[in-house]
Amino acid sequence: MSLAVVGTMAFDNIETPFGKAENVIGGAATYIAWAASYFTKDIKIVSVVGEDFPQSEMDGLVERGATLDGVQIKKGEKSFFWSGRYHLDMNTRDTLVTDLNVLADFDPVLPESYKSSDFLMLGNLSPDVQMKVLEQMTERPKLVVMDTMNFWMDIAMDGLKAVLKKVDILTINDEEARQLSGEHSLVKAAKVIREMGPKYLVIKKGEHGALLFHGKEMFFAPALPLEEVFDPTGAGDTFAGGFIGYLAKTGDLSFESMKRAIIYGSALASFCVEKFGTERIKSITPKDIHERIGKFVTLMSFSSQETSLH
Amino acid sequence: MSLAVVGTMAFDNIETPFGKAENVIGGAATYIAWAASYFTKDIKIVSVVGEDFPQSEMDGLVERGATLDGVQIKKGEKSFFWSGRYHLDMNTRDTLVTDLNVLADFDPVLPESYKSSDFLMLGNLSPDVQMKVLEQMTERPKLVVMDTMNFWMDIAMDGLKAVLKKVDILTINDEEARQLSGEHSLVKAAKVIREMGPKYLVIKKGEHGALLFHGKEMFFAPALPLEEVFDPTGAGDTFAGGFIGYLAKTGDLSFESMKRAIIYGSALASFCVEKFGTERIKSITPKDIHERIGKFVTLMSFSSQETSLH
Repeated sequence: MSLAVVGTMAFDNIETPFGKAENVIGGAATYIAWAASYFTKDIKIVSVVGEDFPQSEMDGLVERGATLDGVQIKKGEKSFFWSGRYHLDMNTRDTLVTDLNVLADFDPVLPESYKSSDFLMLGNLSPDVQMKVLEQMTERPKLVVMDTMNFWMDIAMDGLKAVLKKVDILTINDEEARQLSGEHSLVKAAKVIREMGPKYLVIKKGEHGALLFHGKEMFFAPALPLEEVFDPTGAGDTFAGGFIGYLAKTGDLSFESMKRAIIYGSALASFCVEKFGTERIKSITPKDIHERIGKFVTLMSFSSQETSLH
Repeated sequence: MSLAVVGTMAFDNIETPFGKAENVIGGAATYIAWAASYFTKDIKIVSVVGEDFPQSEMDGLVERGATLDGVQIKKGEKSFFWSGRYHLDMNTRDTLVTDLNVLADFDPVLPESYKSSDFLMLGNLSPDVQMKVLEQMTERPKLVVMDTMNFWMDIAMDGLKAVLKKVDILTINDEEARQLSGEHSLVKAAKVIREMGPKYLVIKKGEHGALLFHGKEMFFAPALPLEEVFDPTGAGDTFAGGFIGYLAKTGDLSFESMKRAIIYGSALASFCVEKFGTERIKSITPKDIHERIGKFVTLMSFSSQETSLH
């Protein structure tokens, strides 16, 4: 099924305890599209870049089956730039620089061919931009997944809440879930957030895995413990891309299917962190992914065997 | 099979964001024995208390099948006392007071009937005391599980390493695993620690679950997400008690059995945190435990279904 993805395409400067990399290609749409491209070839990207964004990067996405008709290229302007430094735990980071550049007045325009996409992934962007994309869809997609971050909760909560009412699934991290809900317990936070609109909530906990909430159901997927976590940048977006990519491929929106989608998202994210930027997720094969899914199965499976208790 | 347990029996003052409780009965041996008592009735406790320790608490353990012949009661002295305050995240805490009291010169003496116990749980105590208990065993137990904490790594690393050489399983938390190994990655930390002696390593991550390492195998059990975490005190000991209790009951030391033991330990710990001190784990029934195991199965299980990838 077709998948429309809106998000940034950007340059990142990344510092981790293990090294430093400058002008790495990044952005939510980049990671989401790469991850989803292992599942579906009908990906339509909505984004904006400056004149500085390498054509080769766009060609790479096109080769993976993505359509870039909805990517605006602003002559004489610069692409979005982010710079950050990870702490030793790799689960927390400081933002050093955020240069909005082309993003400052981004007005997304959906090509006609995008407007009836079956699936829609609203990557982390201002709620206003997310809403503008939603409103241009001529048909309500079968599934709308939204990602956001604490920044928008701080400065655009009303807009965020308006978009929340229109989406099926929200993906945020644990601290953001606490901020958005005002509840410390993630179980309680999930209830509060699902009353805001999304029927499903995915709470991403980085190296501690991810939780999926729906109705009274709950599913947990661990992150794969790795020898080396090299660069967490984009792991959340890669997770989201694998998640919605799997659903778009199968078209199965049952809870059982969503669980598998969480595992595929986690598997893709586990590759992402192994190298700087998109380097690793550009180089994996279907065989790599199948093998990694096998590792998740091994990590999580046990045979429950009733035992008499006192 | 018989299970010998060495650890503290103590009073705790506990402050959490939700309340305060004073002179709560606690201590590693108390939590371990209560948790293990749901699995096996042949529990032999080694500990020391002051004259102030309530007889009713000891009677309660005896009713659950525990033998207290190895618990020294020091006339005119006071029991070990700990006071702590939990942070809002409930995963971290400050120790406010530690009064060793009877623990200061604890010299464990094993009754004859203890010396050939099949299983031995070395609860968190000074490595010297742990070693003294080990050395009094006339037969090497089928399984020795050791718990410890960062405090002993700071002041008694040599003694700790000597005990480590003699145990089968070490249970510590993630920060302690990092401190003990000098490695940030838990996968690398597990390798380093297993070279110190224990063939198995359990890394407890509190609300983020637990990892079991053995050879090239790895198993992950989540903590059950709860609406309310009331008091985390004793959760790690309760986990250890459920873990070794299950193994002592079944006598099955295969990796598959250890995985189930991790799940049982996690289930018992999920009860422990629901009320102050031992209140909750004293009141559960076999039915409660079976139901909770069912929740873990639901939380963790998914059907992997091969899908074609691009």
